[in-house]
Amino acid sequence: MSCGGQGVFAALFTAARLQGIFSDRARLQAMLDVEAALARAEARVGVIPVGAVAPIVESCRVDLFDIPALAEAAALAGNPAIPLVQALTARVAERDGGAMRFVHWGATSQDIMDSGLVLQLHATLDLIEGDLSGLSVLLADLAQRHKATVIAGRTWMQQAMPTTFGVKVAGWLSANERHRQRLAELRPRLLVLQFGGAVGTLASLGASGMAVAAALADDLGLALPDLPWHTERDRLAELASVFGLIVGSLGKIARDISLLMQTEIGELFEPAAPGRGGSSAMPHKRNPVGSAYVLATAIRVPGLVSTMLAAMVQEQERGLGSWHAEWETLPEICLLTGGAIEQVTTMIAGLEVDVGKMRANLDVTRGLIFSAAVAMALAPFLGARPAHILVEDASHRAIAERRHLKDILSGDASVRAHLSEADLAKLFDPANASGQAEALVDRVLAARQEKT
Amino acid sequence: MSCGGQGVFAALFTAARLQGIFSDRARLQAMLDVEAALARAEARVGVIPVGAVAPIVESCRVDLFDIPALAEAAALAGNPAIPLVQALTARVAERDGGAMRFVHWGATSQDIMDSGLVLQLHATLDLIEGDLSGLSVLLADLAQRHKATVIAGRTWMQQAMPTTFGVKVAGWLSANERHRQRLAELRPRLLVLQFGGAVGTLASLGASGMAVAAALADDLGLALPDLPWHTERDRLAELASVFGLIVGSLGKIARDISLLMQTEIGELFEPAAPGRGGSSAMPHKRNPVGSAYVLATAIRVPGLVSTMLAAMVQEQERGLGSWHAEWETLPEICLLTGGAIEQVTTMIAGLEVDVGKMRANLDVTRGLIFSAAVAMALAPFLGARPAHILVEDASHRAIAERRHLKDILSGDASVRAHLSEADLAKLFDPANASGQAEALVDRVLAARQEKT
Amino acid sequence: MSCGGQGVFAALFTAARLQGIFSDRARLQAMLDVEAALARAEARVGVIPVGAVAPIVESCRVDLFDIPALAEAAALAGNPAIPLVQALTARVAERDGGAMRFVHWGATSQDIMDSGLVLQLHATLDLIEGDLSGLSVLLADLAQRHKATVIAGRTWMQQAMPTTFGVKVAGWLSANERHRQRLAELRPRLLVLQFGGAVGTLASLGASGMAVAAALADDLGLALPDLPWHTERDRLAELASVFGLIVGSLGKIARDISLLMQTEIGELFEPAAPGRGGSSAMPHKRNPVGSAYVLATAIRVPGLVSTMLAAMVQEQERGLGSWHAEWETLPEICLLTGGAIEQVTTMIAGLEVDVGKMRANLDVTRGLIFSAAVAMALAPFLGARPAHILVEDASHRAIAERRHLKDILSGDASVRAHLSEADLAKLFDPANASGQAEALVDRVLAARQEKT
Amino acid sequence: MSCGGQGVFAALFTAARLQGIFSDRARLQAMLDVEAALARAEARVGVIPVGAVAPIVESCRVDLFDIPALAEAAALAGNPAIPLVQALTARVAERDGGAMRFVHWGATSQDIMDSGLVLQLHATLDLIEGDLSGLSVLLADLAQRHKATVIAGRTWMQQAMPTTFGVKVAGWLSANERHRQRLAELRPRLLVLQFGGAVGTLASLGASGMAVAAALADDLGLALPDLPWHTERDRLAELASVFGLIVGSLGKIARDISLLMQTEIGELFEPAAPGRGGSSAMPHKRNPVGSAYVLATAIRVPGLVSTMLAAMVQEQERGLGSWHAEWETLPEICLLTGGAIEQVTTMIAGLEVDVGKMRANLDVTRGLIFSAAVAMALAPFLGARPAHILVEDASHRAIAERRHLKDILSGDASVRAHLSEADLAKLFDPANASGQAEALVDRVLAARQEKT
Repeated sequence: MSCGGQGVFAALFTAARLQGIFSDRARLQAMLDVEAALARAEARVGVIPVGAVAPIVESCRVDLFDIPALAEAAALAGNPAIPLVQALTARVAERDGGAMRFVHWGATSQDIMDSGLVLQLHATLDLIEGDLSGLSVLLADLAQRHKATVIAGRTWMQQAMPTTFGVKVAGWLSANERHRQRLAELRPRLLVLQFGGAVGTLASLGASGMAVAAALADDLGLALPDLPWHTERDRLAELASVFGLIVGSLGKIARDISLLMQTEIGELFEPAAPGRGGSSAMPHKRNPVGSAYVLATAIRVPGLVSTMLAAMVQEQERGLGSWHAEWETLPEICLLTGGAIEQVTTMIAGLEVDVGKMRANLDVTRGLIFSAAVAMALAPFLGARPAHILVEDASHRAIAERRHLKDILSGDASVRAHLSEADLAKLFDPANASGQAEALVDRVLAARQEKT
Repeated sequence: MSCGGQGVFAALFTAARLQGIFSDRARLQAMLDVEAALARAEARVGVIPVGAVAPIVESCRVDLFDIPALAEAAALAGNPAIPLVQALTARVAERDGGAMRFVHWGATSQDIMDSGLVLQLHATLDLIEGDLSGLSVLLADLAQRHKATVIAGRTWMQQAMPTTFGVKVAGWLSANERHRQRLAELRPRLLVLQFGGAVGTLASLGASGMAVAAALADDLGLALPDLPWHTERDRLAELASVFGLIVGSLGKIARDISLLMQTEIGELFEPAAPGRGGSSAMPHKRNPVGSAYVLATAIRVPGLVSTMLAAMVQEQERGLGSWHAEWETLPEICLLTGGAIEQVTTMIAGLEVDVGKMRANLDVTRGLIFSAAVAMALAPFLGARPAHILVEDASHRAIAERRHLKDILSGDASVRAHLSEADLAKLFDPANASGQAEALVDRVLAARQEKT
Repeated sequence: MSCGGQGVFAALFTAARLQGIFSDRARLQAMLDVEAALARAEARVGVIPVGAVAPIVESCRVDLFDIPALAEAAALAGNPAIPLVQALTARVAERDGGAMRFVHWGATSQDIMDSGLVLQLHATLDLIEGDLSGLSVLLADLAQRHKATVIAGRTWMQQAMPTTFGVKVAGWLSANERHRQRLAELRPRLLVLQFGGAVGTLASLGASGMAVAAALADDLGLALPDLPWHTERDRLAELASVFGLIVGSLGKIARDISLLMQTEIGELFEPAAPGRGGSSAMPHKRNPVGSAYVLATAIRVPGLVSTMLAAMVQEQERGLGSWHAEWETLPEICLLTGGAIEQVTTMIAGLEVDVGKMRANLDVTRGLIFSAAVAMALAPFLGARPAHILVEDASHRAIAERRHLKDILSGDASVRAHLSEADLAKLFDPANASGQAEALVDRVLAARQEKT
Repeated sequence: MSCGGQGVFAALFTAARLQGIFSDRARLQAMLDVEAALARAEARVGVIPVGAVAPIVESCRVDLFDIPALAEAAALAGNPAIPLVQALTARVAERDGGAMRFVHWGATSQDIMDSGLVLQLHATLDLIEGDLSGLSVLLADLAQRHKATVIAGRTWMQQAMPTTFGVKVAGWLSANERHRQRLAELRPRLLVLQFGGAVGTLASLGASGMAVAAALADDLGLALPDLPWHTERDRLAELASVFGLIVGSLGKIARDISLLMQTEIGELFEPAAPGRGGSSAMPHKRNPVGSAYVLATAIRVPGLVSTMLAAMVQEQERGLGSWHAEWETLPEICLLTGGAIEQVTTMIAGLEVDVGKMRANLDVTRGLIFSAAVAMALAPFLGARPAHILVEDASHRAIAERRHLKDILSGDASVRAHLSEADLAKLFDPANASGQAEALVDRVLAARQEKT
């Protein structure tokens, strides 16, 4: 998705703001920003004359370049930095024949491409961290509001026992908070300069190599790593993996919402808007469009992350193909991740919750959803396993005879020996059935408060 | 890569001719082609009035549409067909208020999108089959010319025994021929109409459904499948997998070439051209640029194929997210595959073969490369395993003492008991060492001849 | 899963019969079968003495070997064939000191391992083809029986329009038939001998190389390929991909069944059996256990297929790591595929279909599921798009006012201008709503009949 | 690889010590450890009688169970915890009919399976962290020793400029240190209890739920998470990804070593040992066996990580198939990662470095490897780009005329105008050519010192 995701299909999946970071223009500008910073840093250290800086810096504007011509030359050269440096040299020469000599001084293509990429990732990280933080606020609010809203807990896609909708949301929130922590931890590893010259030894800069590297890092607002990392790509693959984790958690949210939005369940609805989620054939349709995008992303990103991991096996001092495999893959992961966060944020912000339908659906099983509670109540008398078997048998009878489980049980002498009608009524009351749900939501919200 | 791969980075990987098939314009035009064909087919069958055809068909030109506006509406609607049908209806209305009523008659979005996609894949298949056929011609010629060119066979990236360069190329050719057969086999499965209406029952067309479907398939030059396949995606995933196989074989060629082009080996060279494979830091560099692209593609495509396979689990009558996951993935696979074929074709067409260096490198091991031949010659006398051990020991001595294996062996009484000096000389002559190499090349070339 | 999948977790996923093919014992026996056949073939061609055959063949029984010791030696050697040949030589020596000399004559490790693998894949293919054929019989019967059983067609996981359960099953069947065709097509490509000696030139066998290869292929019941394929792995990766396609289609079946088995939908049920699908906490649970295994397999296999594709980039005449990457991956794909087929077969064979619930669920939307039919009926009068908009608005009113769509429409003058009450009644009758469903089922069944 | 990787093929890839953690026995014992701890914790909190503890704890020994029978029952039940709890209840009943009642009190299958898994991962993490720490010690020593050992830096698999072997190793070390930091960061997230009962609300334990959870976490040496995480799997997928990163870095080391071990390069050699890396056909072979395993692992693990990411989309309160997809995948990743670390450790510990060959290979290009140094020396006079072009032309002449680059340049007036013969001699002296290599190695070693 080298074109920054403009396009009829890409627009479905990607966040417009991220497209701005990864467009061709932005990518070339990021490389030019590095060339400009290099000139400034080298002048500061005394490696190139101060007079060369202005002509170089002024030429480092993407508007001055012919992007399609660069693309064509890049295909031949093997990377876009080579023709860009040539074109930049020509631009500088137009301004100052002397300054031209100091363009790209002591750098190699990959220095420029990687440091430019890190600048783009810096912007990406800022944006995504902000978005995840905003999503956490929405989720915390939703969890708080529905702390006690009873809903059927479903396991194996079957009604299991009651829980609350707040606990479900608290689970989403808890994962989101861990992702924020992961991004905070990887940030200092990721946002580092790439600068080593041809084979990573800074050989072309003589004794000034380290000083130039330090000044360049400083100029770009990046940290100086212990050594150049041309073929040690764990930093980039780590970002890809953590974005993969984020997308996985968002996919889980979308799966949950789309399951609960099914016609026969109808407990949640994605926000409605004119033109959103219609059908060209069926006038009544209100499709879970946001969920579809997010689920699609959750299907796509794992394969892209595996590409980034596979591409880590980079040869010697510059990878052959392995490096190139990253060029479109990592931006695509960033764009898709940003898009999925945006979709989920929209969904959560406007989510319609049908509390009544949640309550009503608890009655669908004629009491079976309370079976575990009854078994647990009988366990002290009969033992966990025998109680389980007794209630299992009663459940099978309830299904076969289409009767309510409570009726079956209340006619069973071995049950009534231990549980009164009132006991049974209490066990079948949803209000008592969701255990520590509220306490758990509180724990998640409190943990979040502590951090902020 | 919805934008058809225009862009600085995409241009490195993709074939320009394929970009033309998968650009936004082309994708929308393919959908419009289906809408036009649908009007013609329905008029033929008598479902819509003949007078409605011309206004609809004339409106089905992508130039009449505002692509960015469609992209924006598509993001909201959940697919591009919905806003496209709306816009098309408006275009037709401008021409003929009556005809407007018969736009998209009885179809669902996915009918239009999938059938449009199949038209694009038809063009892709034609192009790729032609390219693979051309590549086979080049490979057959190269294998023929180097049938007897001795080269070190290398296993585990170590010199093993001599073979010929022709055998190596015959192996590449053999795989390429199998891929052509695979494409021929999948073609009739893949190039079929998608047309079923909302849930695949053709319900909106009453009794005429099957007749319309048949006429539409006929108009589009596609076969009529047994039934609509909205959520049975094996056809598309099969194309993706076979392209994955092709890319794997191309990656093997690129790996071989790049290994043989290493500075210390220097047996093969990618074709040279001004601006091709240079370095921004090292003036002497001649990089294997073509190999880099192909190897990058071979790293990227497996993850994309896994996405297509994972996306096959499509829900009920229309997938939620699973369908959407295909939209950018399959075109990206097509573009990358086409690009890799083009790169390998260029490499093979201009490949420089240094026959002298191939011969010279056989001497690097001081005779060790002939060890298996000697062991085999001793085996009838000593047994396969004892002969192996004897030569293994001699090899270790040759390495340790930096002497030629022949000298070691010729001073070994247990060898000389069975092999004369002349026998040894013959065993260490590369001319005798490549076994059935020529016969094998002939077999591959003959098998190819038979087919054509 | 080198151990053939014995184990508490593996047993959940794999078919016992396939475990027998891929156990350590079976894998070593397959290699020994190749060594035995090699001796027979070489004696037939006159390369080794006839007297050597019996001692070698008699020693080629896995019972005679110490498997754990082989495993340990294999780890050091880099492959299991090397220690196996050593141990086999020792076994033969115990019988006949002379015959010992002719063990493994002219072969390389990979010849033995790959040809042994092809023997295992031969057995796998026989078994899987049989299973898929059996599954087709079950699916055809189910489609036939439910040709006219009305069910809600669901798109985007929302009720869309009625279809029949038979059409859904016919879709599953149609994919299954295509998979059978794919396996038939790849069979002649896959079931070929691997035999080329160290670098694939048959050099160690002098002029007899081709004759031995032909005789060996004949002995093993395999075809003779055009040339050895030590590093051209498309045959194996093709099998992996087609198994990937099969698993994708099975995953779709499992997804459909599990969605229709949800508590609130209850249209289908996996077969019940004592101990099947229970819960340790909830006595009433009847979990879709079969679906869970199949869906898990559909999540796992795509990544494994991508590994097989990535591993195709094999170096020169023997891959370094790339070959090794196949060793556990391909058997794992075979085991998982076989297991998934078995699970789906069990599920289909005992599937419980609640026809009444299917019919009842059509009423959940208060007529919305018939919206497309109404829109289509109005289209000739109003135009497709205006009719769509009219019914869309009516649908939104029906939802908002919790009324039946038919009531809304029958009170709408612009509808009643064109449709009588009787027309509306007909449009809202499920019996008329599933279009060409029966004809489509018949087409699929007929296509199947033709083939058999 | 549920069987813990015993088997002829698995033994090639996996670390024996890790096999002990993931065998069937160990996996069941880990689950039994959780059941025992649960009894202790519940007695401590007063939920079950103290007298029930001993009979339960004493029954929680894997030796008391019939593993094959459990495997068979697990396949039917859908998970191994259900039959294990049944069998455990029976074992306890044999000891104490009363205690039997309190087995598995208030827990669900997934609580036991996940907490058991976390115990296994705890052991895995301890082991892998120790191994990575040991590997760092070896790498630091190797980098220190070869800080100044000149070697050709190679980019795009072509000689580029000199560097030192120490810098290369420092790059490996630097990545290894980052991986250790990543594991330290994820440890507190990963090593947490799973305990929530059927739907994660602790409902079966009434008011004591949180207290039991806290006591259980304490007993197992795990942290108590904010809430149960039955369907929030980011913790597990994170471990998988970080192991994927580690394997990628190890794959890079193996690629480098195997490239430098090629016959024609011969700068590094994997340690030799009897039976290690031989060939069944070629007596002289010394194959890079360790590299092969590690590279195979680096091909396999990315696909497995993608499975773990894809499996994160888990439905509601218990995943259907998505959970099951983890069961064999995560242990396989752990086993392969541990195996790869062990292989690299062996390789580094015994690595043979041919310093003389490294120096000799610098002469292969007849001075071209110094081209960048010359260009840089000319740049202040001519400008970076013109100097580059001048040396590029001279390089092409040197190749075409098979002459030394220094000779070409020293005959070029435009060079000699700025550089004397002595200047040129200095530029072509490898001793001056590796820039800041030593300083960079020192930085990496110092950074490591600081941490420890």
